This record gives sequence, structure tokens and C-alpha cells, in this order.
Amino acid sequence: MKIFVDLGLSATALEVLRQGTSGHELLLAKTPTTSVLANAGPDFKLCEADIAFGQPATEVVEAASRLKWIHISTSGITRYDTPAFRKMMAERGIPVTNSASVFCNPCAVHVLSFMLAQCRNLPVALKTSVPHSSSVWNDLRRTSSTLSGETVLILGYGAIGRRLAQLLQPFDVKIIAYRRKARGDEEVPVIAEIQLASALGEADHIINILPDSPGTRHFFNADRFSQIKPGAVFYNIGRGASVDQGALAQALRSGQVKAAWLDVTDPEPLPDGHALRLAPNCFITPHIAGGHPDETRSLVAHFVENFRRFIRNEELLDRVI
Amino acid sequence: MKIFVDLGLSATALEVLRQGTSGHELLLAKTPTTSVLANAGPDFKLCEADIAFGQPATEVVEAASRLKWIHISTSGITRYDTPAFRKMMAERGIPVTNSASVFCNPCAVHVLSFMLAQCRNLPVALKTSVPHSSSVWNDLRRTSSTLSGETVLILGYGAIGRRLAQLLQPFDVKIIAYRRKARGDEEVPVIAEIQLASALGEADHIINILPDSPGTRHFFNADRFSQIKPGAVFYNIGRGASVDQGALAQALRSGQVKAAWLDVTDPEPLPDGHALRLAPNCFITPHIAGGHPDETRSLVAHFVENFRRFIRNEELLDRVI
Repeated sequence: MKIFVDLGLSATALEVLRQGTSGHELLLAKTPTTSVLANAGPDFKLCEADIAFGQPATEVVEAASRLKWIHISTSGITRYDTPAFRKMMAERGIPVTNSASVFCNPCAVHVLSFMLAQCRNLPVALKTSVPHSSSVWNDLRRTSSTLSGETVLILGYGAIGRRLAQLLQPFDVKIIAYRRKARGDEEVPVIAEIQLASALGEADHIINILPDSPGTRHFFNADRFSQIKPGAVFYNIGRGASVDQGALAQALRSGQVKAAWLDVTDPEPLPDGHALRLAPNCFITPHIAGGHPDETRSLVAHFVENFRRFIRNEELLDRVI
Repeated sequence: MKIFVDLGLSATALEVLRQGTSGHELLLAKTPTTSVLANAGPDFKLCEADIAFGQPATEVVEAASRLKWIHISTSGITRYDTPAFRKMMAERGIPVTNSASVFCNPCAVHVLSFMLAQCRNLPVALKTSVPHSSSVWNDLRRTSSTLSGETVLILGYGAIGRRLAQLLQPFDVKIIAYRRKARGDEEVPVIAEIQLASALGEADHIINILPDSPGTRHFFNADRFSQIKPGAVFYNIGRGASVDQGALAQALRSGQVKAAWLDVTDPEPLPDGHALRLAPNCFITPHIAGGHPDETRSLVAHFVENFRRFIRNEELLDRVI
């Protein structure tokens, strides 16, 4: 087999890849991507490949007639998630897998870091030096919570949502999940779209993990924000485009949304002076939720496991198309 | 029974107390404390009481000959934890209980909020707006961890430590506990003092929950900090006096300790210009770890449960003397 790889790999990661695919040929892209989120440019080595691992350009995939499997190096698959691409893959019988398993744990830990920083008042408390029993001090203590008894609504209940539910297990919280197609094997109650307004009105923490697709564009618009329980907290770890950011800024100003914690925005980064960057109750990290030590190594380890399955004709992990 | 109470209570809390002690008499202090951490002044109503609930002054306890039980409204019991007071209680057969059960969950959640903020790089990431694939961005992602595979050393393994171990259960961490007297019923491996240097050299996260007592004063001194694995993170949620703060500031400067997260200091608050307040890798909250909504209500609920046990001669919760 010839395996096209357009991901820039650490030395360790490359060694793991070579060992995991020994007896097969690696076609390393001339200009590998500089990060796990960057798209690679077209590279026609792909046309000789049986397998593509990374972020292959869709127009070259079209021309690459030998391709039998594509493994995407991200969790989001926006550029591949189109009716035309899906149709082409179906017609050519090419399975597409992604790297959701690699990023679900860091993403879930990142959301929990947001939730706990919020409930323990860290943004304010870390800047506050006051004596015991002062009114500022009593207020800080009184408004610090433990999540106990609170309701968490997770929108887009895939690998990240499932992992988050595991991390939340020792906390005394109620979890509600929303996903477009419930599978029936979810560990938590899954609601349908018709129940969403009521769930938004009940939740104390709203976790948006929706992917970017035509169906999710501005999913959180002024209407949805108006359905939110006043004082709830909004988190976005999915994709920026699923939120109407003007509507979010307005909801933050009015206090309908008490605070927003965003790892994704539209665009990234937001320009200086953007309303969300100026809002004192909006906290933004620059799309690092999936980050962890030596990401390319864990991406390769995941690919190698899927490669082992592909060779043996076993079911692939993280199949998305 | 006459129950002396010197804790300032919310209306709800007072109602819960009245209901839980109906048929008995409440002696409310003339000047109740203004916070759960403040000491009440001497109040001689205590001399008529059978039970004291709050922060009774030790010199009045000595004179209060009818006392049969003291329930302290904090988790820390520094002012009562002296050989002389312990001896007096033993001779008079007075059990002393504290409110550890009330504060263990918020304190453990607070430590976890520190740990996750640290491992997800929040102090830096929340101030960083950079494009994908920039070197700053790649560094942020690379240095963001998930705790997975890391070692957590908990010093002072009581109610807070036990709860923290529960919260850490879904994370793939190794937990080691140190406590002065191992009881044998701990859920995690407990080490003796002789193994401490080796554990300090192994741990990635060192959680100090030691109480303030003559034996723990400056427990973390220059010598102990020198035993820490370079780059480990230090957390203090116990009492400030157990740390030689000059030695900590030096360890933060040298990088031996990568970062410190402190909810307690000595004194509180630290004066402006203190080395720990100026250190960029030291993060301080003003002794709010135990804070949660309506603390006096949960303190009263805990007291009421212990009162029920006291009346029936059952084993008291959180007995400390």
C-alpha cells in the first residue's frame, strides 16, 4: 500500500508511523501542514496513493483514482462534509475516518476547565485581594458554586460530549444531550429539536459542540439566546460559525447569558475591538482545546490502529463518511 | 438543651436551625460573626449552654461548666488544636466536632479548578489572540495537558483529599497521599514521612491540604521545595503557615516549581508588593475555596444532623477532638 501523509510530524511520530506501517510505502507531502488545523495545499503525490492521512485537498482527492481510504487528522471535517464529497465517496466506496478519538479527551478537559473556572469565580477571584468578612469577600464565597444540583445541556453529543459526561460523573449534575440523530446508545437523556427551547430554559450550563455545517450555521441566534435561562453560562468548543456572535454579544450585555467561554470564534482570531473581545464576561482561548503534548504522535498512533484494522478488513474507528 | 450559636445566619439557615432543634432553646450571640472565617468575641451566654455551635472563644469555654459538646463552624480548628485545649476537653469528656463535611466538596472543586486552569494554560491562553499555526499557538497547544499519566501527591488526606480523589477518578492520574496517621481505610496509597522526599520528586502536582499546627509550620521549607521534581506545580488549600513563603517565592523564581496556586497565604491577604503577589507564575484566590451558595444553611444542616445524633447518643460526624 502507498500511504500519502501531508501532516508535519515530530521525529517520534514519524518513527511510530514507519513502524506501524512497515512493509508499506509512505508518500510524505513536499510541504506538510504547519499545524493540525492548517489545510495542506494540493499535492499530486496523492494521485499515486491508496490511503490518505492528513488534510488532503478535495480537488486532488477527486483525481486520485487509486484511493481506498481517507483518514482526516482533525475532529472537524467541514471541508469534506458536503453533499458532493459525500456522494463521491459513496460512489467510489471510500470510507472517510477522522481523529475524534485523539481530541475528545483534551477538548472535554478544556470545557471542564472553563466550567470550573466559571463556577469558582476564578477570573475575578484571582484579581481580588481582600480581607475575610469584607463584603467583596462574602460575595465571592457566596457566588462560588460546585456545579452541584445544576443542569448541563450538551449540544452535539459525540466523542467530546461523551467524555465530558464521564468527567462530570462525580459532580452532582443533571446532563441533557441534544444531537441531530440520536443513536439510542447514549449514556444520558437525548432530546429532540422540539424539546430544545425547554432544555435551554432549564440549563445552567450550555455546552455547544456542534460542528460547522450548513445546518448548524448561526444555530445559536438571537431567538435561541432569548430561550436561555437568564444567568446561564454559554460555552463553545465546536465551531465559531454555529453562533451568531452579534446575538451572543447582546445576550452578554443584557445578562441573559451570564458569561461565555469560547475556544472557537468566527473568524479566528477575532479582530481587535470585536464586541466579544471587549465584553468583560466573555473569555476566549485561541482554539487550543484539542491541544496536548505531542499531538502528531497521538494522531499517528490513532491512524496506525485504524491502518491495522483497514489491512485486516475490520471496522474502522471514527468513521464519518 | 440550650444551644449557644455565635454564627451569623441567613433567614433560611435560622429557620432550618429552629426546626432541627425544636423543643430546645437557642442562645444567639449578641454579636454574631460576620463570616464563616471570623472569630467571635467572648460571649458569656455560652456559660448557660449545653452545646456550642460556631467559633466559641476558648477562654469562655473554660468557664462554661455546663458544656457537653462543641461543634465548630469551620474545617480548620487551629485555635482549638492545642495540647491544653485537647486536655481540657478530654478531662471534661466534651467531644469537639467540625464542619469538614460542609467544606470538603467546594474545596476539592476549587483545587480541581486550579489544576485544570493550570493544565489547560488558561492564565496565558485567555490573554492570547493568535492565528492558528503561529509558533505561540503551537506552543500553547503543545504545553496544554489533560493530567493523563501525571502523578498527584495530596498532603493531608482528610475529607477534602478524599473528595478530590473522587473528582480525579475519571482522569488517568496516579494519586499518592501523605497523612500524619494513616488509618488504613484510605482509597489511595498512603506514604509515610520517610517516603516523602521520593514522592515529592515524582509528583507533577503537589496539593497541600495540611492544617495549621505547630507540627506543620513551614512544613514546605527550602529543603522540601528542593526535593520537588523540577517543573511540578504546587497548590495550597490548607493553611498559609504550613509554607515558608520566601522559599516558595525562590522556587518559583528558579522554575523548580513551575507555578503555584494558593487559596491560603500567611497573612491573608498578602500585603501589596509581596514577592508571591508579584510572581507571574503564582496565582492567588483570597481564601474562598470553601465558599458555596448559602454556606450558613449547609453549616446548619450539618449541625442539625449532628444534633440529632448527639440527642440519640449516636456517633458524631467529623469528630476532631
